[in-house]
Amino acid sequence: MEYYSNYITKLIESLSALPGIGAKSAQRLAFHIVNMDGQQVQRLADAMVSARENVRYCKECFTLTDDDLCPICKSLVRDKSTIMVVENTKDLAAYEKTGKYSGIYHVLHGAIAPMLGIGPGDIRLKELMARLRDDTVKEVIIATNSSLEGETTAMYISKLIKPVGIKVTRIASGVPVGGDLECIDEVTLLRALEGRIEI
Amino acid sequence: MEYYSNYITKLIESLSALPGIGAKSAQRLAFHIVNMDGQQVQRLADAMVSARENVRYCKECFTLTDDDLCPICKSLVRDKSTIMVVENTKDLAAYEKTGKYSGIYHVLHGAIAPMLGIGPGDIRLKELMARLRDDTVKEVIIATNSSLEGETTAMYISKLIKPVGIKVTRIASGVPVGGDLECIDEVTLLRALEGRIEI
Repeated sequence: MEYYSNYITKLIESLSALPGIGAKSAQRLAFHIVNMDGQQVQRLADAMVSARENVRYCKECFTLTDDDLCPICKSLVRDKSTIMVVENTKDLAAYEKTGKYSGIYHVLHGAIAPMLGIGPGDIRLKELMARLRDDTVKEVIIATNSSLEGETTAMYISKLIKPVGIKVTRIASGVPVGGDLECIDEVTLLRALEGRIEI
Repeated sequence: MEYYSNYITKLIESLSALPGIGAKSAQRLAFHIVNMDGQQVQRLADAMVSARENVRYCKECFTLTDDDLCPICKSLVRDKSTIMVVENTKDLAAYEKTGKYSGIYHVLHGAIAPMLGIGPGDIRLKELMARLRDDTVKEVIIATNSSLEGETTAMYISKLIKPVGIKVTRIASGVPVGGDLECIDEVTLLRALEGRIEI
């Protein structure tokens, strides 16, 4: 691509590597960036680098956060006796947006997927079990996706926790089968929470 | 969005400001960036900033380039007697990809669009006329888009150049009416070039 500036070619290549950004989108974005205000470009670049450098896992629930503990785990008003288990931070955000869940979370960062070689040891399950050791937690709500992997993970976790004697529930099937939590409207998410059943 | 890390929230905001990136895509990209290799993120950020800082207009043809002159204007093998006039650098790239055009270019950076208040003075037309002053140029090929604005611009340029006594041609209507040059396959682009007619 000698007909482009080397800088633009490099930028297009870097942008194409991002998920969901094809060659055309990368080109469109690159030309937009070149025409943007210089300070704005610097801010975008800084936002990327500092997010990558400063974001870490909450020590308690393993969501992505700025500090040792996330705002939810730090909060004094959240109900520490209920843990909602989700696959990732986006799913946590989806339930937080409903504004009605007052418990805390546990982020697995994935789901058990034998086909992809992802076993129980590859997600934050050990860390969840460690959190159940004292008597604080009374209920674990499993809010993994209702996909094959999500259901497998839910079954696995329920079998693991049952012997400990803690109540385990699964969000109701208000969530459409095969859907991702983050794409679902808040009303459906709430209905699924209200209709949760013991498993 | 206190449930996200501040860094992630800021990154999502910055990404959402880019064209064609909605709230969901911005979120997806932000989480991807946070999970990317640190060096890779730094490279992407650097690519943005250095493209914005170092890219400038070629002194001759006004395409976006790294240097005072673009590789095409600098080249000793390109035919300096033929200038192809395009609306923007992406259109130049579209013709370069065919690998069959050996002349040089002139990038207008826009088209005349009275409805949007863009007149002949707002695109690089004066600069094109200046390039025609010596006797080097024998033909000007107008390859603006075949949209209303592109056709208007083509007619305007042809009327401007005719009195100078230089041959003015327009790429053939192999290009579908209403289409953008950058989206068209190379065969059609070549057919349009071969079938160009004097206007």
